[in-house]
Amino acid sequence: MTITQFLPQLEINTDLARRIIVDFIRDSVQRIGLQKAVIGLSGGIDSALSAYLTTEALGADNVKCFRMPYRTSAQNSLTDADAVIESLAVQADTVEITGMVDPLFERFPDMSPVRKGNVMARARMIILYDQSVAFEGLVIGTSNKTEMLLGYSTLFGDSAAAMQPIGDLYKRQVRQLAEAIGVPGSVIQKPPSADLWEGQTDENELGYTYDMVDQLLYLLVDERYRPEECVEEGFNADFVNRVWRRVRANHYKRTMPNIPKMSRRTIGHDFLYLRDWAG
Amino acid sequence: MTITQFLPQLEINTDLARRIIVDFIRDSVQRIGLQKAVIGLSGGIDSALSAYLTTEALGADNVKCFRMPYRTSAQNSLTDADAVIESLAVQADTVEITGMVDPLFERFPDMSPVRKGNVMARARMIILYDQSVAFEGLVIGTSNKTEMLLGYSTLFGDSAAAMQPIGDLYKRQVRQLAEAIGVPGSVIQKPPSADLWEGQTDENELGYTYDMVDQLLYLLVDERYRPEECVEEGFNADFVNRVWRRVRANHYKRTMPNIPKMSRRTIGHDFLYLRDWAG
Repeated sequence: MTITQFLPQLEINTDLARRIIVDFIRDSVQRIGLQKAVIGLSGGIDSALSAYLTTEALGADNVKCFRMPYRTSAQNSLTDADAVIESLAVQADTVEITGMVDPLFERFPDMSPVRKGNVMARARMIILYDQSVAFEGLVIGTSNKTEMLLGYSTLFGDSAAAMQPIGDLYKRQVRQLAEAIGVPGSVIQKPPSADLWEGQTDENELGYTYDMVDQLLYLLVDERYRPEECVEEGFNADFVNRVWRRVRANHYKRTMPNIPKMSRRTIGHDFLYLRDWAG
Repeated sequence: MTITQFLPQLEINTDLARRIIVDFIRDSVQRIGLQKAVIGLSGGIDSALSAYLTTEALGADNVKCFRMPYRTSAQNSLTDADAVIESLAVQADTVEITGMVDPLFERFPDMSPVRKGNVMARARMIILYDQSVAFEGLVIGTSNKTEMLLGYSTLFGDSAAAMQPIGDLYKRQVRQLAEAIGVPGSVIQKPPSADLWEGQTDENELGYTYDMVDQLLYLLVDERYRPEECVEEGFNADFVNRVWRRVRANHYKRTMPNIPKMSRRTIGHDFLYLRDWAG
């Protein structure tokens, strides 16, 4: 089963998207009195595109990129991150996470690969947030809409950021914008991977292609199709149910933790302001 | 300047508060099909009270407490945590953070004590979230309302949790409820401290007492006083402005990161559901 008829509806105006995102980044940083940003480069397309957009918004001198490899990280991840750094002429540093995470892996030797992946993503968050203080910049998130809807990320790990510039772009739209902006071809063409173990790819782990799930999510979320209506359009019923269950089950990652109400005004209930209230 | 006239308004009905919080914890855990919870014990009153309430909600067999000392952590922090664990007869484990954080401290030897404190709080989050998977439980947050309003916590560190059961209780109310519930006296009486360096206390670091700032926050937040009206009630103008600025400047810690809107339905804008949508 391959569905392609909704791909044209996923096409974006890349000039407009680029302008909206660049203005958003600049405004978000400057509104709170800062000029700079830090960003973690995995070697993948999401962080590469985010680095390009951030550099366009703030200028190369105001951006610092971090490579944070584990000892088993693929060598081409570092090479691809380097290509982005060179092309943008931004500041950069490499901080290994191996020494931080191995003690915990040794303390709990039965830890599964997924748990290890979460520990690694969170160790990178620690480095990035710490370095954001040293550099006096904000942490730029690199999550896309597909990943946020599927909850295919580590809470307080790679999803932790001061803003999510590409958070309203599906993976296919990320590719489209990356091509338009001139992200290196090697970054765009390689199979998306969290690089948690050798040969891992997102699409193998998820069990479906990004093109398929992007079309389905577009119908469910943007077009408000009911799951049955997606099946009528030709999507496999089991696939639809699995994806929709996953979207709902991961909604906690897209909200703040609940607080039981006891006073007249409670955080998250009726003490509500925009994020940049102070700005 | 000492103000006490608003302290009576901070008094809570401890029976009611206890019932609301215990029901909230049980419902939040069971609604998503789980039975258990994990909690990090610092030796302080917030985590101790949260452990008591969680154990009342779920039963001692369903609660696992973690002590996560750094090599310089105060010995009495561990002793106080032990008193809570013994009194509740819950499961417990100790996982040192020293091996995880020292490599980063060595890599950046100019790191300030505040930055180190943030790294340590986030390393504890990593352990707690990882162990929550092993134990199949939710991570119970231990943040109180005073701390959340002041932003006196580490984002993605001690503030990271699946829920915040005592998040609508000011510090003074935490003490009142802890006394009513029978939290060990040594925990209640010692000066609140993040235990980041020897002799640190919250009140010294903040520059004011919890009783003073609790009364001020109560007027500003719950009673919707304007800052000038607080000054008229006798609060020092500089103190009022400092606190109110801090509340606003830290609001980002109480919200999700922004996403620039580009599609018909955007996470955080118009794709909005309750946290337990799937429940």
